[in-house]
Order: sequence, then C-alpha cells, then structure tokens
Amino acid sequence: MESVIVGIDIGGTGTKFGLVDNSGNLLCEDKIDTGGETFDHFVSQIVEAIQQMLVQYPDCQLEGVGVGAPGGNYYTGMITGASNLPWSGDLPLVEKMSQYFDVPVVLSNDANATAMGEKVFGGAKGMKDFVMITLGTGLGSGIVSSGNLLIGSDSLAAEYGHVLIKGSGGRDCNCGRKGCLETYVSATGIKRTMMELLAKYTTPSVLRGVAFDDLYSRDIATAANAGDALAQKAFRITGKVLGRQLANLVAVVNPEAIFLFGGLALADGLILDPTRKHLEKNLLGMYKGKVKLMRSQLGTQGAAIVGAASLAYQFKDYLQFQED
Amino acid sequence: MESVIVGIDIGGTGTKFGLVDNSGNLLCEDKIDTGGETFDHFVSQIVEAIQQMLVQYPDCQLEGVGVGAPGGNYYTGMITGASNLPWSGDLPLVEKMSQYFDVPVVLSNDANATAMGEKVFGGAKGMKDFVMITLGTGLGSGIVSSGNLLIGSDSLAAEYGHVLIKGSGGRDCNCGRKGCLETYVSATGIKRTMMELLAKYTTPSVLRGVAFDDLYSRDIATAANAGDALAQKAFRITGKVLGRQLANLVAVVNPEAIFLFGGLALADGLILDPTRKHLEKNLLGMYKGKVKLMRSQLGTQGAAIVGAASLAYQFKDYLQFQED
Repeated sequence: MESVIVGIDIGGTGTKFGLVDNSGNLLCEDKIDTGGETFDHFVSQIVEAIQQMLVQYPDCQLEGVGVGAPGGNYYTGMITGASNLPWSGDLPLVEKMSQYFDVPVVLSNDANATAMGEKVFGGAKGMKDFVMITLGTGLGSGIVSSGNLLIGSDSLAAEYGHVLIKGSGGRDCNCGRKGCLETYVSATGIKRTMMELLAKYTTPSVLRGVAFDDLYSRDIATAANAGDALAQKAFRITGKVLGRQLANLVAVVNPEAIFLFGGLALADGLILDPTRKHLEKNLLGMYKGKVKLMRSQLGTQGAAIVGAASLAYQFKDYLQFQED
Repeated sequence: MESVIVGIDIGGTGTKFGLVDNSGNLLCEDKIDTGGETFDHFVSQIVEAIQQMLVQYPDCQLEGVGVGAPGGNYYTGMITGASNLPWSGDLPLVEKMSQYFDVPVVLSNDANATAMGEKVFGGAKGMKDFVMITLGTGLGSGIVSSGNLLIGSDSLAAEYGHVLIKGSGGRDCNCGRKGCLETYVSATGIKRTMMELLAKYTTPSVLRGVAFDDLYSRDIATAANAGDALAQKAFRITGKVLGRQLANLVAVVNPEAIFLFGGLALADGLILDPTRKHLEKNLLGMYKGKVKLMRSQLGTQGAAIVGAASLAYQFKDYLQFQED
C-alpha cells in the first residue's frame, strides 16, 4: 500500500490542495476560494474535498497532512496575524484539521513549506544547510540549518524580506516601515525599480506605454529578453541588491546553497547572474566559492502543494529537535 | 565523585585554561603564552599543566575538554585560517588533545563557546533561541536555535561582525572589505567613532589629549560617565548602529533574548540603552516587545574558560543534531 500525504497551500485569494506520493508526485489537486462564512466552514469544505479525493485512491494510505499558510505558526498550530486572509484573530487550523484526520497535521508558513519541499523532493536533497528565497509579491525565506527548519522562539524566524537595507530614504513597505529588502527584491520590487528607471533615464523602452498597475514582473523579463536596455538594467539592479543581502545572510547561517523560487526566479539568468556576481563579490573571504546559487528544482506546477505536503512527510525528523 | 570539565580559551597572545565544576565554578586556572616552537609542543605544554591541575583534585572525575579558539571548526576539530595565531595551516587540535585525554574533546570558535556558556551557566538557562554578541577588538556572535548552536555547512555560521552595513564609503575592515559591522561596533569601532566626532565637532572633550593608539574603549566609557558630551555621543551612535543591525538579525533567527558580552558591554546602560531603543524602533511589528536585550550573566572573571568548558558539558545535547 502506497502512502500519500495531503498538501494544502492557503493563499490570500485561493487555497490549493492535493495528494502527494512518496516521490513528490502530485496525484491530484483541487482549489477553492479562501473564504466562506466562518473559518470552520472553510476548513470543512477543504476536508470534504480531500475525503472525496482519498476515495479515488483506495490503495493509498494517508500518512499526514501538511499546511503552508501566511502566518502559519509551527508551535501553536494556529494561523496568526495574516492580514491578507479574510478572518481575524488566531485561527486554530491544526486543531480543526485534527478533528477530521487521525494523522499528524503540520502547519508552517509558505516559505518554510517551500524550503522543506526543496529538501524532500527538490534540489536540496541530502543538504543540511541551505536557504530558500521565494520571490512573489513579497520576499519570503526559509532556512534549513543542520537539517532542521530554523523556526525561532515564536515560530517567526526567517523573515528575510523584512531586513532593513537603507539607512534612510527607503521605499515604503506594507509592514509600515521603510527600506525593507522586499520593497526592492520581489515581483513588486522590480516593478518599482523599473518605474524609477523610466523616470530617471530618457532611454527608449517598450514599458513606457504600460501603467504601474498594469505592469507585471514577467513583462519586464519579456522586455529584457527582447533587448530592452532599461528592463535589463532593472534586473541587474535587483540582482545586485539581492546578492549583496544574501552575502550578509551567508555570514549568519553559512549555507551550502541558496535557492530562488517563484515568478521572478523563472527569469533565470536575468536574475541569477547578477545575484551570483554580487553575492560572490560581497562574501567574506572564507565563504567565497562555497555557496551555490540556483533556481528551485521544484516544478512550478503544484510546487506549493508539494512543499506543504513535505512538512508532514518529514514529520519525524522535523520534530526531532522538540524531543530535547 | 564530582565531575569536572577542562575549559581552554586560546587567544592570539595568551591561552587560558582551568577546571570547571558542574555549577560553572572555575576551580583553578592557569595561563601560558600562545606560541612555542611547534603547535604540538604548545599542546603538550597545556596538557602537562592540566594534568598537574587534575592531580590536585583527586575526588574529581574528568568528563570532557572544551576548547574555544578563533577559527575553531566544530566539524573537523581543527583550527583553520586563524590569522592571529602563530602557526599556519590546519591545526588538528581535537586529534592532538584526544591523544592525552580519554574523554570527549569539543572545539568551536570563541563566540560560540561564550554562547554555550551563557546557556549552561549564565542568563540563557532554559532558553532555546538566543543570540550572543561578543564585543572585543572585533564583534563575534554565537546563535542558539531550538537549543543547538547554529553551526552552518562549514562550521562558519554566525559571523555577524562581518555583515556589510554600508552601500559604499564604509570603514576599512581587517577582513579586506569595507563597511563591516565590527568596524563600527566593537572596542575598536567605538574608538574610530570617537575620533570622527573629535574631528567633526569643536565640543571640548577630555579625549582630545589622547592619541589614537593610546585610546581604549574603557577611556571613552569613563569620559562618558564623567559627563563628556562627545564620549556620550560615541556610545549613542554605537548603540544606534548595533540596535538597527540586531533588528535585522531578529528577522532571521527570532530569538527570545540577545546578550552582550565583553569589554564594551561592561559600559552597561551607556551601550545597552541606545541599543535597546534602536533595536525596538527598527523591529518588524510582530517582533516588537518580544526580544530581551541584556548583559551577559557570565562573570567576567574566567568567562572564556567557563564558556569553553560548557561546549563539552553540553556534549550530548550539542551533538544531537548529528544523529539525524
């Protein structure tokens, strides 16, 4: 009997879930809106859909449920302070899920889930020390150290998108402060950089005809690949800022590798090359040549679900540090 | 029969060692110059002195040897690339020591040793997530996460003195780069800041009569405590830089507390108050009010030896993550 894990990725607008086998294959997936009258109702909707999925795989044994969610607290099992979800307060996700499933239910934030996905099924197999950087609307991060997720005292570690990189005059961040890394390095960050470049230079660009609200990072990548000088410059600047800040992160966690995941990472060499250059340039001597920078090896299709599932897949190792 | 641990603190000029009991008391200590014809000879000198110590405590059972040294590599047991020691190459310290002692010998760098000292015998008892910042000639750091030292892929984690904090125009660092945190925050860093203030302002200061080479951080503390406005400003600036950078470190490791250790930390409120203010001011909202900043609770007398000993005291817990 093959074992399967349920992976659930709760996002601001949609929630995706599916069954993942031992090799990281997504056997089936579904999606519902993140919403509903109450949080309880939302959970019961997911559970019902999952139970229907399981009926279609009678030869599979459910072994765990992994959930990635913004504000997902590993220790309490609650989703806390996630401003982009439709419910307020502490949401007892693990407690609710455990009423339906007699297997371990593990919750963490989405970047941590992606990091564990990389470790279990992606390019970080066999690695004990690595960093995952997720580049979406913001910049998320997950850090694996000595084989375990770096969780922190309140399950709030690895918020590298919110390190301050400017002494003053930094860009407004949604967190209420100014100059956070993610205001420069993320899908939104590169868009802001692109707008600055259009304002500063008179160089022609196909993006001069696109409004701020209509501009997406993939448009900048497309323009850059077509030879647009300012779009290329936007990537170089983004990589320079990211590389420099990753050099600082290396001095904290001394990883074997750093993985980039998400829309912006799909731009491949456009973002990887300048990031690698400035990472290496800014590294303290003893780290030089020792840190691999690469794109996530997780497929883009269903990666969030597979990542979430890997939280539960690793359940025993994952909890080991709690047995001290 | 009481158990004792040998603690050895290898510094650039002197090496201190002693016997530490289960409560963290230093039973006896001695010191030799860090040097000698060969590294082997140096080790045999220490061993001989320790064996004479042990003879005087016939009721004590030796349970381990802990060694803190710059460049001390936890994984290989070697001292590597420590430019301020008189021997070059990889120095197989654990292998040599193990020829003489039939107990575990554990090596790490000095800041990690101090962090473990705080955990075993100091203010971090019972804490699983905290940061140790050692303020000496440079800035060292040790990070404990989920109860274990953050070691990293090459045993080179937690070099927070070498995060780059300036985009350009930073101070020269001994590492060959510019703008490392320790060029601003350390005994040397505050001295450089003091010199800048004397150059910039015409405000009277007792330190105008002291040459760069003759100025020590304790002189700046003495002047500040006596009301010297520029010396007080030097502490405020140092605390501002440190507090801001600690806020970034909190976003990576989410510690329960941060401890300051070393000469500069003895200035107490002069350094702690501005550091705490700017730490709190720069924290991402969800961390505010959650991170304690305090002076190390390790006594200054023999703290380095006690810290080194604690590496071995914690031997089983310390190695737990390697059993994955």
